[in-house]
Amino acid sequence: MTLLSIVVFDDFSDIDLTLPWDILSRVKRRDWKVNIVGMEATHRSTLGVQVKTDERLDTVAKSDVVLIIGGEGSRVRVKDLEFLECLKKLEPGRQLIGAQCSGGLILTALGLLEGRTATTTPFATLEMEAAGIQLQQRPLVAHGNIATAGGCLASLYMTTWILYRCLGATETRQIFSQVAPVGDDGLWDVLDRAVTAEITTNL
Amino acid sequence: MTLLSIVVFDDFSDIDLTLPWDILSRVKRRDWKVNIVGMEATHRSTLGVQVKTDERLDTVAKSDVVLIIGGEGSRVRVKDLEFLECLKKLEPGRQLIGAQCSGGLILTALGLLEGRTATTTPFATLEMEAAGIQLQQRPLVAHGNIATAGGCLASLYMTTWILYRCLGATETRQIFSQVAPVGDDGLWDVLDRAVTAEITTNL
Repeated sequence: MTLLSIVVFDDFSDIDLTLPWDILSRVKRRDWKVNIVGMEATHRSTLGVQVKTDERLDTVAKSDVVLIIGGEGSRVRVKDLEFLECLKKLEPGRQLIGAQCSGGLILTALGLLEGRTATTTPFATLEMEAAGIQLQQRPLVAHGNIATAGGCLASLYMTTWILYRCLGATETRQIFSQVAPVGDDGLWDVLDRAVTAEITTNL
Repeated sequence: MTLLSIVVFDDFSDIDLTLPWDILSRVKRRDWKVNIVGMEATHRSTLGVQVKTDERLDTVAKSDVVLIIGGEGSRVRVKDLEFLECLKKLEPGRQLIGAQCSGGLILTALGLLEGRTATTTPFATLEMEAAGIQLQQRPLVAHGNIATAGGCLASLYMTTWILYRCLGATETRQIFSQVAPVGDDGLWDVLDRAVTAEITTNL
């Protein structure tokens, strides 16, 4: 069983959730499950959409993949000790851990980016650098089992990285073809190259 | 005042709504409003998210831009006479009209694609062709005020087309930079080229 958890909180970025959630949910395997997890039964997006959670945040230890998305609300969560306590159960030794945009602030608060380069949204650059993280101007930065992505649409890179790591290149391409722009292979080529480079370079 | 309406229905595709809604909502002008419109007070996405509508569908006549998104539910809507009746108020002479993926089936049912080429999701190709529409293997096909996009992620092309037509290239680029992948100008270049070509070629 591959269990994937996407971490939400109030005032999360809509694209950050929907792109990975929609694409990852297109994997039709019995042993594949995508959960939305948070502190409450529902959480509100920046656009005001209420999204139900499937599990409480303190269940993340049992997930194979944990993706922390971004949004203005992340700035509140980095000071929320109860929220951070739940995520202290994360173990990059045995789990894939991704942070999208300002979700990187949460990984920083947990100490998981220490000694690693990372990327984030331009709106969180100052805070990440102030915390001592060395940023790279790239959509995706992966080191072993930890990856960060910067810019809402870089969630496409993050989603591809997760699919590659869990299912391999062939199945990833198959899933991606379901949502790819018609007659435009360029986008896939870019994602494929970037993710392959990250996986092979930064083991 | 520029009023934009995104048309939803039950079982709409999550990416199809979120990408344009999130990006178009980043335009911070007092004379810019993005509404979600539908037959009911809320509509359910394929992933089960309930989205509130701002206005009823029969108000589309007053919108400057109407975007019909895709999803499995579109197949039910093309047989829903009350739904189609509301959209008969559309006037491409004075409104921008876009259809994403299987939303093209709805434009087809309204007769708005007659004599025009179009694009759609691979999942709706047979139905569109059976209805006599000549399809092109391209992410975006625009003829004057009517555009179709194919593949969920082609909603990026559709959104760019809407922004270009309403606000011009400079402001569109500014909005896009807020969500662009960090350090990846390639995606913007592709969108810019494709949309500019559609606008200048098919007047």
